[in-house]
Amino acid sequence: MPKQMDEALIVGKMERVAARGRADAKRAGLVAGIGDDAAIWRPRSGFETILTTDWFLEGTHFWREWHPPEAVGWKCLMRAASDIAAMGAVPCCFLCGLALPTRLPDKWLDQFLRGMWRASAKLHCPLAGGDTTHAARLLVNVTIVGEVPRGKALLRSGARPGDLLYVSGRLGEAELGLRMAKKLRRSGRHENEELLKKHLFPQARIALGSWLRSTAKASAAMDLSDGLCLDLHRLCAASGVGAVIHAEKLPTASSRFTEAFRKVQRAQAALYGGDDYELLFCVPRRLQSRIPDAKTGVKLTQIGEITTSRQVSLITNDGKRKKLQPSGWDPFRRRIALP
Amino acid sequence: MPKQMDEALIVGKMERVAARGRADAKRAGLVAGIGDDAAIWRPRSGFETILTTDWFLEGTHFWREWHPPEAVGWKCLMRAASDIAAMGAVPCCFLCGLALPTRLPDKWLDQFLRGMWRASAKLHCPLAGGDTTHAARLLVNVTIVGEVPRGKALLRSGARPGDLLYVSGRLGEAELGLRMAKKLRRSGRHENEELLKKHLFPQARIALGSWLRSTAKASAAMDLSDGLCLDLHRLCAASGVGAVIHAEKLPTASSRFTEAFRKVQRAQAALYGGDDYELLFCVPRRLQSRIPDAKTGVKLTQIGEITTSRQVSLITNDGKRKKLQPSGWDPFRRRIALP
Repeated sequence: MPKQMDEALIVGKMERVAARGRADAKRAGLVAGIGDDAAIWRPRSGFETILTTDWFLEGTHFWREWHPPEAVGWKCLMRAASDIAAMGAVPCCFLCGLALPTRLPDKWLDQFLRGMWRASAKLHCPLAGGDTTHAARLLVNVTIVGEVPRGKALLRSGARPGDLLYVSGRLGEAELGLRMAKKLRRSGRHENEELLKKHLFPQARIALGSWLRSTAKASAAMDLSDGLCLDLHRLCAASGVGAVIHAEKLPTASSRFTEAFRKVQRAQAALYGGDDYELLFCVPRRLQSRIPDAKTGVKLTQIGEITTSRQVSLITNDGKRKKLQPSGWDPFRRRIALP
Repeated sequence: MPKQMDEALIVGKMERVAARGRADAKRAGLVAGIGDDAAIWRPRSGFETILTTDWFLEGTHFWREWHPPEAVGWKCLMRAASDIAAMGAVPCCFLCGLALPTRLPDKWLDQFLRGMWRASAKLHCPLAGGDTTHAARLLVNVTIVGEVPRGKALLRSGARPGDLLYVSGRLGEAELGLRMAKKLRRSGRHENEELLKKHLFPQARIALGSWLRSTAKASAAMDLSDGLCLDLHRLCAASGVGAVIHAEKLPTASSRFTEAFRKVQRAQAALYGGDDYELLFCVPRRLQSRIPDAKTGVKLTQIGEITTSRQVSLITNDGKRKKLQPSGWDPFRRRIALP
């Protein structure tokens, strides 16, 4: 039965999540967590602090009716951690703002916190604090504090003409998983968790980001959250460059999707689909030999190169050059805005 | 006319707020702000980082129909900064999560950001980053990063039996201002901004907090956001002590409220009213002489003392001792829960 939510009840449950991360908290320099007006964290000397905040809202980013609460808890933290990965940094601790409806099944909150705890343990990123209050719909806000050696963060602005452009993993699987889930739901058939894995339980590429910074000497990086096309435009704008990518090189969805979607749909999802949380990065051409086919268990694919012209272009499968418009996930239209 | 909100439009406006704080950003060690996956901040050696996050939600904390957008922008930042003040720390930079309805008057957003900018300038706390998205109602989340000399933060847990208990400013004015505004609205009469000042434009007691830490050597402190009674219970619980306070000593609302409210109402508001953002602090008795009647322009009042017994008691005006229950602002009942 949904019981009346209560601030003390929620804070008590969050304190237990924080307590389970005590070993990580000590390692990360967390001096004081939940229980005072604010948390106290001791940064290491020689490091810079990386700060990112991310919404995860019922009705915008997830739907209570069909997203498992454990996935909501996992994903709200992982997608914020993806920004930390993109800077070549490691997460140290996080704050969680949680606004809940008055009547929410206790079980929902417990499973949500279990998902969040699992992501927190995976990332070695303990809960440092938060704020809880009431709202008509479920609202989550996650702020992650990370660190990176001083002056070494990977920026969007470092791409230079001639650099090679890479992505990690496969693109568009989260988007196809989401579409499949909606279709199955309408037909009343059961969802396939394996198919939805990338949508429900994304992985922040922390180890890969650190390797790109320290070893591969990537010139620029960002994470893919709103689709390759839109995010590549952002990276190019920040660097004052353009790019050309090759359709045939794009690592589209794996074979488990080939039954349900045509090739053109998979290609579209790879270009415009959101929620991938893979890394887009650039490497000076002379360092190309440092980039293997896979690293930290993740496939790496060269998909194009950085150009002087400020355009972003796609070389289609039949060899034609096509200008790409900055299209992708638009939260205010709640859909992928296609050109 | 409300125009269709757009992520690029909002980010552009926020970038202008950040740009106006450039001098503060440089001073605070903000290396990179809006424009990358995350912000980069360089902490000073010898300092610890203070982290706090705070909700400010339409329908829970403010109402679009009658709260001026400039006050919403000011208050969302000031109330988070109040937590930094309570730790004896200074704010360095902040992140702002902003979720907006699709159709929002451009003017609302501009005035909101002007209020936020004014608070940011007052606090010397520049905007470092954020996240913008869509939601049916206006949602604001503010995370502030502050700093304090290593090991010197003021905690809730430092109160010891025999310590004297103080508050800054006057208590209950925000609550009475809010009640007055509701009453005036119902009668169709115009609201009195002066009366509402404490409710609409609270001040974080940053300078006072720093002084309490560095000079007055306060043993414990916290900010008053949910009412003296409830917050004092929290301080006592954190310190493993009790307290006794004297009704006749409480600094109740100033004379501008005496016309509209009876003495008993002002006393109730001082005990249970939320949103004061004053500081509650403890000082060892031997240091009593260090506490003047006012500091940094704010009145300081000794209201009681810390006791060994874990109870929180009130000495009433007729000299009777009454046990206080932990009552105050409850977001899930959206009212002050009185005993």
